Amino acid sequence: MENLFLAKGTDFEEGMWFEITGQEAQHISRVLRKKAGDYIFVSNGEGIRAHCEIVEIQKSSVVVKILSQQGRGVPKKKKVLAIGAIKKKDRLEFAIEKAVELGATEICVFEADRSERSRSNEQRLQLVIESAFKQSARFWLPGLVMKSSLDDVYMHYPEAEKFMAHEETELTSRTKELNAPVNLLLVGPEGGFSPREVELHQSIKGKMVSLGANRLRAETAVAAILSQFLFSD
Amino acid sequence: MENLFLAKGTDFEEGMWFEITGQEAQHISRVLRKKAGDYIFVSNGEGIRAHCEIVEIQKSSVVVKILSQQGRGVPKKKKVLAIGAIKKKDRLEFAIEKAVELGATEICVFEADRSERSRSNEQRLQLVIESAFKQSARFWLPGLVMKSSLDDVYMHYPEAEKFMAHEETELTSRTKELNAPVNLLLVGPEGGFSPREVELHQSIKGKMVSLGANRLRAETAVAAILSQFLFSD
Repeated sequence: MENLFLAKGTDFEEGMWFEITGQEAQHISRVLRKKAGDYIFVSNGEGIRAHCEIVEIQKSSVVVKILSQQGRGVPKKKKVLAIGAIKKKDRLEFAIEKAVELGATEICVFEADRSERSRSNEQRLQLVIESAFKQSARFWLPGLVMKSSLDDVYMHYPEAEKFMAHEETELTSRTKELNAPVNLLLVGPEGGFSPREVELHQSIKGKMVSLGANRLRAETAVAAILSQFLFSD
Repeated sequence: MENLFLAKGTDFEEGMWFEITGQEAQHISRVLRKKAGDYIFVSNGEGIRAHCEIVEIQKSSVVVKILSQQGRGVPKKKKVLAIGAIKKKDRLEFAIEKAVELGATEICVFEADRSERSRSNEQRLQLVIESAFKQSARFWLPGLVMKSSLDDVYMHYPEAEKFMAHEETELTSRTKELNAPVNLLLVGPEGGFSPREVELHQSIKGKMVSLGANRLRAETAVAAILSQFLFSD
């Protein structure tokens, strides 16, 4: 899967031709210097990946023909990873990269009570998601949702089963399974969730998840919580 | 645990006075500008953390008195995280940071068949470990072992139960438990283990561990494999 490209939302069909444009086309033509007749893989980000032959190539347009395709379809259980914005951009981006690699189907970045204000650049985070999607050879491109408080996150996912990673939770070694169609995995910013947020979570009967005895950085907590549910999908 | 410092290998005893020197002392005196009478926490990295009062402070010498101590002792099961050296230094350091946070008791960096030669700076990695140890408020400071091949790693841990994270392993959702006193968790460099290394692992009856359906970066695999065994200690 050396050459996996993204053509968001395309309806693939065997034998079909379609055009890749924009940055993705430039990457194929100018950076990788692909030629007509070369083969590439293209994903629509919605569960299908196609093996394609390049038919025509220009600087910012690549026309390909679908030779075959394979699909995993829509994930049966959604895993939404919600993280309180952290100030250090590289750590936030790292957290999001890990979330994509470890199977989040959607990523929600929210301003937690203890997030230090520093407007997250949505476009930049979107690029991190797409890059990690290709790197990890996934079939499903996680969406990105930005919210301005934990309260707003809960309003946005009313039906979700909600799991909060909280330092003071009793250690448990039970295998965790996801049972609901939509699951919201919540990780706080550096410094964790505020007492108000913990109370809010308890008031809506949310579940607590322990991530062990050590104090984890936010991006480590993201990797650890998704790893707990790695095989639950 | 805002102010956790390290005095490696000190035998703590209540009421005892001892001197902190070197960089750690400079950090206390010059960066944090602590004064006599201030309280700090000091760990010996061997399972004990002491609550101390500063008795005397100079630029590169801090004398403290132990008021009380708490301990978790020596870990019952050793979790050695062995990672094939990766070329990008920041990703290797990140992997090591995650390993410390997620409970590795020892870290082994080795030149895997697919490691691109770039001498890892042992001293620098040691600093990463100490920094993550303090950050994550651990009791046990993981040691660092450098080896020049996977074969040497096996020779160094003859008694260990050995688990290899390998992409082509069948997916499994079983809870994993560590049963042996010493456990070696093996993660390859970018590009994974070579067929020779996989064969070597099988020839010594090592176990395989799956980390899900996606292709993981090396540092993500480190976080994921340790997360599988988060409560097994």
